Amino acid sequence: MKWIKGDFLHKGKGKSIYAIQNHPALVWMEFKDDLTAFNGKKTSSFKGKGALNRDMSSLIFRFLKGEEIENHWMADVNNTGMVCRKLEIIPLEVVVRNRLAGSTARKFQFSEGRPLPSPLVEFYYKQDELGDPFVSSEQALAFGFVSDGEEVEFLKTQALRVNDKLKTFFDSAGLELIDFKLEFGKEKPEEVDGSLHRENLNSKNRFLLGDEISCDSCRLWDKKTGDRMDKDRFRLNLGGIEESYKKVHDLLYRSFPAVRFYEDKLRKDKV
Amino acid sequence: MKWIKGDFLHKGKGKSIYAIQNHPALVWMEFKDDLTAFNGKKTSSFKGKGALNRDMSSLIFRFLKGEEIENHWMADVNNTGMVCRKLEIIPLEVVVRNRLAGSTARKFQFSEGRPLPSPLVEFYYKQDELGDPFVSSEQALAFGFVSDGEEVEFLKTQALRVNDKLKTFFDSAGLELIDFKLEFGKEKPEEVDGSLHRENLNSKNRFLLGDEISCDSCRLWDKKTGDRMDKDRFRLNLGGIEESYKKVHDLLYRSFPAVRFYEDKLRKDKV
Repeated sequence: MKWIKGDFLHKGKGKSIYAIQNHPALVWMEFKDDLTAFNGKKTSSFKGKGALNRDMSSLIFRFLKGEEIENHWMADVNNTGMVCRKLEIIPLEVVVRNRLAGSTARKFQFSEGRPLPSPLVEFYYKQDELGDPFVSSEQALAFGFVSDGEEVEFLKTQALRVNDKLKTFFDSAGLELIDFKLEFGKEKPEEVDGSLHRENLNSKNRFLLGDEISCDSCRLWDKKTGDRMDKDRFRLNLGGIEESYKKVHDLLYRSFPAVRFYEDKLRKDKV
Repeated sequence: MKWIKGDFLHKGKGKSIYAIQNHPALVWMEFKDDLTAFNGKKTSSFKGKGALNRDMSSLIFRFLKGEEIENHWMADVNNTGMVCRKLEIIPLEVVVRNRLAGSTARKFQFSEGRPLPSPLVEFYYKQDELGDPFVSSEQALAFGFVSDGEEVEFLKTQALRVNDKLKTFFDSAGLELIDFKLEFGKEKPEEVDGSLHRENLNSKNRFLLGDEISCDSCRLWDKKTGDRMDKDRFRLNLGGIEESYKKVHDLLYRSFPAVRFYEDKLRKDKV
């Protein structure tokens, strides 16, 4: 399949989004070398970061597909591109925490790494000008960030399912998953109609997992040393950012040759 | 009944709490003339404010008792004192909003007074040093601010029941209830044993409504003029604070001679 990059659609902090010619239901996600933190207030970059994050995200999305967690991944293109289903992303970041760290630990003066009795789901309202404020389920509903209570429940349940899968996934690679951020969206049925993946559009048009899952969006600690292996190295000026991203990338690909894993599964399903 | 004020127990921003001699299960709540806002950063006072708030709170607690919403009110003493059941207050402020105003409206840049599809319950972690941060039900549970999911559900349900009653109550007095804050706590069974109200200790030892309900803890707008009739006059430097508190007090006592109302009910129950 030859994908041809179309019009520029949207500039994110770590990615740019383009149309794909003749495929209105898909987008081309271009992973950038830019590093940003604290709502864009701190910025940097390193060469190859876009490629590393694309590879990690791709591996994880393919792994999750194998685990029957629907997501937007369709194909990788070049070193930094990903062909994805086009989603209308809802304005909520869904965070799952297995230990307390980062903003929530600071807000309540809990020690970084404090264990939780069970995984905690949090919602943040995606709005840069407001600093992405924390919202409760009840607020998300009352303010119209989601349509109904069923949607809120789906987001919570799905985020916890993803957590279950990812915890084991990272654990096998020697990494502890402390927390992570997910984004979800819906496809426009009229765009999907007639497209390559029309058979995949679920009848209820539920939220699909989108965005990326990488060292930018997860906190990952080395299981043996406790070292931070994620964007916190940048946030906290710990150095060795590039090395950590590279190490996580390599650990994951060594533990999960998931391309084959997912494709084997597809092949088997077709027998 | 002659109540004798005992040891000083606790200094709050608007009230001081004392023991009551020979009644270990009760406390003496002394309403002060102090006005504070923004977590104690802005302060003032006016003579008679303590008495007005004691009267309003007393009326409302007695009204709620008549509506079968259990609370800590036992008796009024002097002009500014209230004899209450002694509660161990949980570290959560429970806020109910009928329209958006104040901190939540500001946080999301919603217009002050924006209607809500249905009443919204919010929790805030009572911790002055942290600025009373907003918490979700899931966080309140995960951080141990409540013991279990049943307690969270009880708080939400009870807060909404109080809202139902109070909305009608204030409406009859020509006031719109925009939002309000409640506090809940539990009695210590060993203290209650042998006390005056031992027959009232429910077997499950559920949360009792405590603290105060007054112009300090409610947003009340004049139904006709839309004028603010509560502590926002102080927060927003609108002037006429004393007049507003006095007017709300008088409107409520004119509409609800609730002392009689509640006592009539008690008398009827005893027939």
